[in-house]
Amino acid sequence: MASKKIKVGIVGGTGYTGVELLRLLAMHPEVELTVITSRGEAGMPVADMFPSLRGYVDLAFTDPTASDLNACDVVFFATPHGVAMSQAQALLAANVKVIDLAADFRLQDTAVFEKWYKMPHSCPGILAQAIYGIPELNREQIKAAQVIGNPGCYPTTVLLGLAPLMEQGLVDFSAPIIADSKSGVSGAGRKAEVATLFAEASDSMKAYGVAGHRHHPEIHAQLTQLTGADLQFIFVPHLIPMIRGMLSTIYVKLTEQAKGIDLQALYEQRYRHERFVDVMPLGSLPETRSVRGSNQIRIALHQQAEAGYLTLVVVQDNLVKGAAGQAVQNMNIMFDLPEATGLEVVPLLP
Amino acid sequence: MASKKIKVGIVGGTGYTGVELLRLLAMHPEVELTVITSRGEAGMPVADMFPSLRGYVDLAFTDPTASDLNACDVVFFATPHGVAMSQAQALLAANVKVIDLAADFRLQDTAVFEKWYKMPHSCPGILAQAIYGIPELNREQIKAAQVIGNPGCYPTTVLLGLAPLMEQGLVDFSAPIIADSKSGVSGAGRKAEVATLFAEASDSMKAYGVAGHRHHPEIHAQLTQLTGADLQFIFVPHLIPMIRGMLSTIYVKLTEQAKGIDLQALYEQRYRHERFVDVMPLGSLPETRSVRGSNQIRIALHQQAEAGYLTLVVVQDNLVKGAAGQAVQNMNIMFDLPEATGLEVVPLLP
Amino acid sequence: MASKKIKVGIVGGTGYTGVELLRLLAMHPEVELTVITSRGEAGMPVADMFPSLRGYVDLAFTDPTASDLNACDVVFFATPHGVAMSQAQALLAANVKVIDLAADFRLQDTAVFEKWYKMPHSCPGILAQAIYGIPELNREQIKAAQVIGNPGCYPTTVLLGLAPLMEQGLVDFSAPIIADSKSGVSGAGRKAEVATLFAEASDSMKAYGVAGHRHHPEIHAQLTQLTGADLQFIFVPHLIPMIRGMLSTIYVKLTEQAKGIDLQALYEQRYRHERFVDVMPLGSLPETRSVRGSNQIRIALHQQAEAGYLTLVVVQDNLVKGAAGQAVQNMNIMFDLPEATGLEVVPLLP
Amino acid sequence: MASKKIKVGIVGGTGYTGVELLRLLAMHPEVELTVITSRGEAGMPVADMFPSLRGYVDLAFTDPTASDLNACDVVFFATPHGVAMSQAQALLAANVKVIDLAADFRLQDTAVFEKWYKMPHSCPGILAQAIYGIPELNREQIKAAQVIGNPGCYPTTVLLGLAPLMEQGLVDFSAPIIADSKSGVSGAGRKAEVATLFAEASDSMKAYGVAGHRHHPEIHAQLTQLTGADLQFIFVPHLIPMIRGMLSTIYVKLTEQAKGIDLQALYEQRYRHERFVDVMPLGSLPETRSVRGSNQIRIALHQQAEAGYLTLVVVQDNLVKGAAGQAVQNMNIMFDLPEATGLEVVPLLP
Repeated sequence: MASKKIKVGIVGGTGYTGVELLRLLAMHPEVELTVITSRGEAGMPVADMFPSLRGYVDLAFTDPTASDLNACDVVFFATPHGVAMSQAQALLAANVKVIDLAADFRLQDTAVFEKWYKMPHSCPGILAQAIYGIPELNREQIKAAQVIGNPGCYPTTVLLGLAPLMEQGLVDFSAPIIADSKSGVSGAGRKAEVATLFAEASDSMKAYGVAGHRHHPEIHAQLTQLTGADLQFIFVPHLIPMIRGMLSTIYVKLTEQAKGIDLQALYEQRYRHERFVDVMPLGSLPETRSVRGSNQIRIALHQQAEAGYLTLVVVQDNLVKGAAGQAVQNMNIMFDLPEATGLEVVPLLP
Repeated sequence: MASKKIKVGIVGGTGYTGVELLRLLAMHPEVELTVITSRGEAGMPVADMFPSLRGYVDLAFTDPTASDLNACDVVFFATPHGVAMSQAQALLAANVKVIDLAADFRLQDTAVFEKWYKMPHSCPGILAQAIYGIPELNREQIKAAQVIGNPGCYPTTVLLGLAPLMEQGLVDFSAPIIADSKSGVSGAGRKAEVATLFAEASDSMKAYGVAGHRHHPEIHAQLTQLTGADLQFIFVPHLIPMIRGMLSTIYVKLTEQAKGIDLQALYEQRYRHERFVDVMPLGSLPETRSVRGSNQIRIALHQQAEAGYLTLVVVQDNLVKGAAGQAVQNMNIMFDLPEATGLEVVPLLP
Repeated sequence: MASKKIKVGIVGGTGYTGVELLRLLAMHPEVELTVITSRGEAGMPVADMFPSLRGYVDLAFTDPTASDLNACDVVFFATPHGVAMSQAQALLAANVKVIDLAADFRLQDTAVFEKWYKMPHSCPGILAQAIYGIPELNREQIKAAQVIGNPGCYPTTVLLGLAPLMEQGLVDFSAPIIADSKSGVSGAGRKAEVATLFAEASDSMKAYGVAGHRHHPEIHAQLTQLTGADLQFIFVPHLIPMIRGMLSTIYVKLTEQAKGIDLQALYEQRYRHERFVDVMPLGSLPETRSVRGSNQIRIALHQQAEAGYLTLVVVQDNLVKGAAGQAVQNMNIMFDLPEATGLEVVPLLP
Repeated sequence: MASKKIKVGIVGGTGYTGVELLRLLAMHPEVELTVITSRGEAGMPVADMFPSLRGYVDLAFTDPTASDLNACDVVFFATPHGVAMSQAQALLAANVKVIDLAADFRLQDTAVFEKWYKMPHSCPGILAQAIYGIPELNREQIKAAQVIGNPGCYPTTVLLGLAPLMEQGLVDFSAPIIADSKSGVSGAGRKAEVATLFAEASDSMKAYGVAGHRHHPEIHAQLTQLTGADLQFIFVPHLIPMIRGMLSTIYVKLTEQAKGIDLQALYEQRYRHERFVDVMPLGSLPETRSVRGSNQIRIALHQQAEAGYLTLVVVQDNLVKGAAGQAVQNMNIMFDLPEATGLEVVPLLP
């Protein structure tokens, strides 16, 4: 009772990361949902748009201009790219922390940002102090951060999948790292588009973004940071007829040194204290449904000894560990709460 | 810390109602999972079969014969029909409460039971004191019960959908009550069968059981009990390509008296204190996903004034309010806990 | 070589009924696809939009204003409601037959049309001579028709399901006829809308249009015409997570006379020469996939003797017998071809 | 009328490749379906098991021992591995051609066969004369063949995807070839198994067979044959929640020479006369639904210039070009018919 609850604002609560934040924060014992904005739906009770929240969220959407975000302790941006950077300065000035689920604070190189997102970066100063929000890689910096660039969904799988190898210098960069990733359709967002209609996307699949996907430079930058090395990275995402779920199959050439190491033990050791990273027993092949609705990420290792390669299979719920769940995990760290607060959800299977 | 936790046993934990009980009970603050039996999988850690439970359930399946169920406070039967009645007597003698998720204690008329389930009823004495476990209809009796016959999934939708009308005598029985029900495929259970393979059941639908479904006599008996009247009931279930979810569309002829009554208000009034029954605003059309993973049941009313009919649309998650969730709700009542303990789960949408 | 092919134009070829017409007509041995219009996609090769047609359709979309539809023998309208009636007069004057897959020529009562479609009817004169295109009911009139109002998808199931009973006067109209219908999502068309996104419509279902669906007056008008009687009709459509497929469960009260009749034999007799109507053996429960991609409609009868009701289960592919296939069937009749020409497609199962 | 129809027998007609053969052969103008065997279903009309075939296939299943396969011109084996080799000798002696859709005649190295299929090869002599049935690679040999080993589904995508590169020596074998393949669930066959139930396989995905899949040695052997080179091949198949459809994403390192070549033109040239191989325009990303129900295979090329890699995306219907359709294509060649006879089916989209 002593501790005051965290006042939370959400900007852009009508998309899938928005409703997912609401699902998690509605049950978070240390959070008080204070304001949810939506330009288009101001006045509408949130639970009218998302009946799943009836009885859990009593707020109505408010117009962004009329919303007092400055009274919040933290504001989540579940908006299109470019919105968070336009409001971050004012919020920080009012001592409000910012967690952006879009890309505004993910890429430290503004030239790269501008190339891929087709807009100038409006606050490079804030960007410079923003922290890339993967707790398992950057926990200490997140603790002290005012601004979090919450990672893209694909990058989370690839980076947590490769980190133990990279940190130990066990990857042979003479071959490209290849990530063949598969995502459920919710990854495309809650936008009215023909390509993601049920009758288009169901009972079918495709690759997309082969010529260039925005998560390529994000992953490439983070991998480079993990190793310092110059590396080639091939990334092919695929659209899979499932609502949630993401699976990345990662092919990586091992160094000679790596071939003598028990990589399974290395991974188990690296993540043994990580509540949300599950290194599966040797020989496992995780299904995406094994993390449905939860913040868990599961990693399985398979060694192709003859070819000198390691194949990693990584699964997560793209809307949770790949977006809203990781954002809440970051918030917990920033506010010095136990990291799993509000995130103890058993995956929904079947 | 003062209160001792409830020791819970589950017989038959490898089916969908079993894993769903595990999902809910793993997070139940007043429960200690003590034993989970499986004839076929004895020795296997539960989380090996259901990786979604990794980190939440540490138990392994034990052989039924080697399991000390008598040390439990309550035992759930998530088994085929006929198992609970063979063990109930011994458990009751050991002062263990029984909640059967199969049909053994649902039908008070043993002749009807034997006709539909093709087996003799082995303990009519216990049956006589068993309570039909819909809390919103039989709460007081459940409080005092030692044995619960947890209702079938379809009956829960039809009975809660019709109860307010029936209790007030507003149904004209000169026409049959018609329930056109639709269920996700998990309702068929986790059994290896061709008809429920993905490649058979996906992107297609069908009616089934038109000539006679076991839930017909169950619903008929309960409806008769609610009214005392002799009534005709037509029930057509359908198999829908979704994992979870159940929707019943119920067509009922109104009495002349009913036509002058505000039925929407009647329903809201009847269920105003019911945590898990949500009477939707007038004109609503609930989606099954709005209750995915939760114990909620949602009811919408639509009046066909010209025809003198009321159409009810009722949705629930067949595995939660239609099975395991309702069973936990019954347990909470039997052990004098707040009824929603362990059941505060926001539906997973999308 | 003697016989000249039928020159076919399609107005509005970018929706699902459009691409379905293309699929069927591309293989039709007596058809020459001449022109396909699209306001938005003029210039684009049809096979660029629908790669399934690569190698089968070489045409590009042309702008409606620049397209010489008058050179066609028949023009199909796969357009929004209201387009066909604006162009029908000119086409008829040029001796071009018209088959409208929208609603412009389905409802003879213009007041009803205007109430449900929110637009004035611009050519009641043409409407008066238009024929409602269900060959199994109106074959002789279709032969001589210049304008066909191709039926809605739901009406085809309900009308062919009920026709044998209605024609013989075996329905007791003291109770309403109830049609509980279920449709795949393609029935909503190829329009960018949130409600039919994969992540919204998958793994879930709902009723819709309970307060009033446009097919209600269409079915009501045709049923009335079949019987002359004043009747009550309750219609509840549902959206099912499958691409194609429609199933109507129809509940109808039988007259005393009907109870003494072999209704199964009656149906088999009525449809014995109908290539596309399949009366299933007694006790059958047809799956929608059993007609996937084909013009077949399957009907099964189930008698609820005690209640005095007959339950009909009717399945079709909503895009074929429910739209484009029936349109081609109508064309075949109008041009005196064997009725199944170009429609001999084995359903795709699994 | 002059030409006599080909008498066709199918052994094992109750699985998915069996019903798919029936779908295609029922409409094949030069085929007379003569006998369909099934050990378990003898006596049952085929159309009772597969109502989609009502009106198209009048045969009943017959017991294998009672079936006169010797009177056929060709027999297709749609059976488990090991059946065809037990019957091939007798059929060949009776001058009946054999097309095996299982693995009995795919692997020329019997030691490899025995390792992967856990059974001795019973007729190495016949195996030696069997032809691996990919027409686009082995057409001339198929013409003269008496026995066809119809390829596995995955191998067809990988081999047709890589053939033009391999034939021209443009692959740098210093890196492994990586095929990340995705298959619809029908690939697992029509067997009652828990893992492929709708409620298990829907709305989820997983990798499988990473430690070793039977198609690995098959692909490896054929690739080796195409090049003579010693090469490393990594193969990871995935199970995708769709009924049909297969997509292989293939990552291959190019030689220095290859980097100066217009690979798109090379592919278009290589396959320009192939009716069933569609090289997509540069930049395309084919969807599996674009080939649903058809014998088409579509290939798209994407060059990763910086990494020196080519990424190929290949789609087919696993049951058609990946199984039954390719088998019919082989039959057409063996009987000197136009290769596309009976295979002109427009893909079903949506």
